[in-house]
Amino acid sequence: MLENKEPTKTPLDSLGEFALIDHLTKSATTSLPSTVLGIGDDAAVLKHDGETIVSTDMLIEGIHFDLAFMPLKHLGYKAVVVNLSDIYAMGAQATQVLVSLAVSNRFPLEAVEELYAGIHLACKTYGVDLVGGDTTSSQQGLQLSVTALGTAPKTGAVLRSGASENDLLVVSGDIGGAYMGLQVLARENEVFKANPKHQPDLEPYSYLVERQLKPEARKDVISLLQDLKVRPTSMIDISDGLSSEVMHLCKQSEVGCRLYEDKIPLDPQFINVCEEFSLDSTTIALSGGEDYELLFTIKQGDFTKIKGNPNLTVIGHMTAKGTEPSLVTRAEEVIPLKAQGWKAF
Amino acid sequence: MLENKEPTKTPLDSLGEFALIDHLTKSATTSLPSTVLGIGDDAAVLKHDGETIVSTDMLIEGIHFDLAFMPLKHLGYKAVVVNLSDIYAMGAQATQVLVSLAVSNRFPLEAVEELYAGIHLACKTYGVDLVGGDTTSSQQGLQLSVTALGTAPKTGAVLRSGASENDLLVVSGDIGGAYMGLQVLARENEVFKANPKHQPDLEPYSYLVERQLKPEARKDVISLLQDLKVRPTSMIDISDGLSSEVMHLCKQSEVGCRLYEDKIPLDPQFINVCEEFSLDSTTIALSGGEDYELLFTIKQGDFTKIKGNPNLTVIGHMTAKGTEPSLVTRAEEVIPLKAQGWKAF
Repeated sequence: MLENKEPTKTPLDSLGEFALIDHLTKSATTSLPSTVLGIGDDAAVLKHDGETIVSTDMLIEGIHFDLAFMPLKHLGYKAVVVNLSDIYAMGAQATQVLVSLAVSNRFPLEAVEELYAGIHLACKTYGVDLVGGDTTSSQQGLQLSVTALGTAPKTGAVLRSGASENDLLVVSGDIGGAYMGLQVLARENEVFKANPKHQPDLEPYSYLVERQLKPEARKDVISLLQDLKVRPTSMIDISDGLSSEVMHLCKQSEVGCRLYEDKIPLDPQFINVCEEFSLDSTTIALSGGEDYELLFTIKQGDFTKIKGNPNLTVIGHMTAKGTEPSLVTRAEEVIPLKAQGWKAF
Repeated sequence: MLENKEPTKTPLDSLGEFALIDHLTKSATTSLPSTVLGIGDDAAVLKHDGETIVSTDMLIEGIHFDLAFMPLKHLGYKAVVVNLSDIYAMGAQATQVLVSLAVSNRFPLEAVEELYAGIHLACKTYGVDLVGGDTTSSQQGLQLSVTALGTAPKTGAVLRSGASENDLLVVSGDIGGAYMGLQVLARENEVFKANPKHQPDLEPYSYLVERQLKPEARKDVISLLQDLKVRPTSMIDISDGLSSEVMHLCKQSEVGCRLYEDKIPLDPQFINVCEEFSLDSTTIALSGGEDYELLFTIKQGDFTKIKGNPNLTVIGHMTAKGTEPSLVTRAEEVIPLKAQGWKAF
């Protein structure tokens, strides 16, 4: 599909490097007052009041995504969103991104344009400026690197290390969907490879597939918490899996925790598809990853402020220093949590 | 050489992702007051007085470097330095870097440690903090992405667009060496492939090889200009080639220029090796790239401040809007400048 065998497609090397960058970034007009200078010089110039937040991530074809079922526009969108998620996980506002792209000549210009359409859409959706990056060729495949910047709240960034004993553990949205979306897509791809005339019906899986292909970062939750005047004591985003992220908070805050299996928020479609695949929904929810929900702790006194909010679920509480992070099962057994999240190696 | 066939080497996948990151970044203690929080959370937290400068670059195996003659420690050093160079090219001070690395399992842990040794050395040499990054596997080869941050001078960043007619065009150091260093290394590598017992004698080429393998960013020139109270009107670093960079300044400042062939600073070793390779030294100096010297313009009134400084050479002057960027040859011919710099595609 992506091989440039069609004569109507434009080979990438027909443009020079500078012309390509100009072409791809011409719609990257900047709109934030904190962007003093965007693309076009040796570096971008930003003016952040207070603290600057910065994070970077790399996405590698064949490791982080499979172009057999990840459309390029979605890939561009997701690459930006997962980086913005890291900024929101500091309680901060995302303001700028830089996107670097290495791409082999098997991709025509039109494919790279699709990718950038997703990048621009994510920037527009989240109100961030694209202020820089790099575009180069690769020997094989597609590699993306995104750096996101933001501004911390005046009260300071929310770290992983601020949780105390008795703080409540809260998660936004629901968990595990992105992983099961990937399982559905991988299954359909296997069927397609065996029978290229197969038309997949993804309708019964639409929520899960969207969680995988078009995740959203919880900018809205940061705003919500500000409106509710709740300042989380610690926070992290769920990229590797709930279990792994809970353990990060515990380790860096030097506390234990009790996570209640029956409190973990699961979408009905997720539960159904886990049954269809004969997978245990709790195991997937704990280990699945890529949900980009926010996991945070709050003081018990703030509970009434968030109680009943459909976006937020209390799933446990932090325990004393020296205690283990543990899962309380539906059978009321207490078992140690294990990090079984996604592994890059 | 890099294949992990030796049982004494440690496979990368014997560590988990988090243990690997911990291992590689444990020596990344931060020392700048502007680094509020370094590696270990969702993002780094920085406190920059005034404007923040940010730039990012990707380095791809087989495109930007060849591990047959680029030792990994040098690669790590160079990857950081070329990004810092972009920060200095804004007249700014570099303060922090983030480094992302994708690496296939053919690299043992010891190879990645070598790479990080170079990254840490560059950070130490330039006084910048390593505050973040990402480490992941790749399907093939090694991909590096570096983001550098810095702080602009109070008078504002020096842009490419600030040159005016009659401003003097100045370059630091000497030009073309990095490209000829690459030619020497590539030739020795061909000889080595034909005869693996061949012992290369790089001594006569030591300066050029060092320019290629261990380039330095001109932090010292930024300090020098501050000491001399010279504020450049425009500036760029020489990554793609002198000719290409001169044309960037002209285009973005909307002026022309006259560049004098006989003024271009060349090292004697560079001239000798160009003769040995039967290459025209001016052509190489104009098109070579990767020198990471600074190219800038100053007001004529500042000439006396820089006159005679061995680090700085006036190589031309800017001409009126609408005139062409041109080269005045030794034969006093005036010919249009062409950008023949390094192409990524």
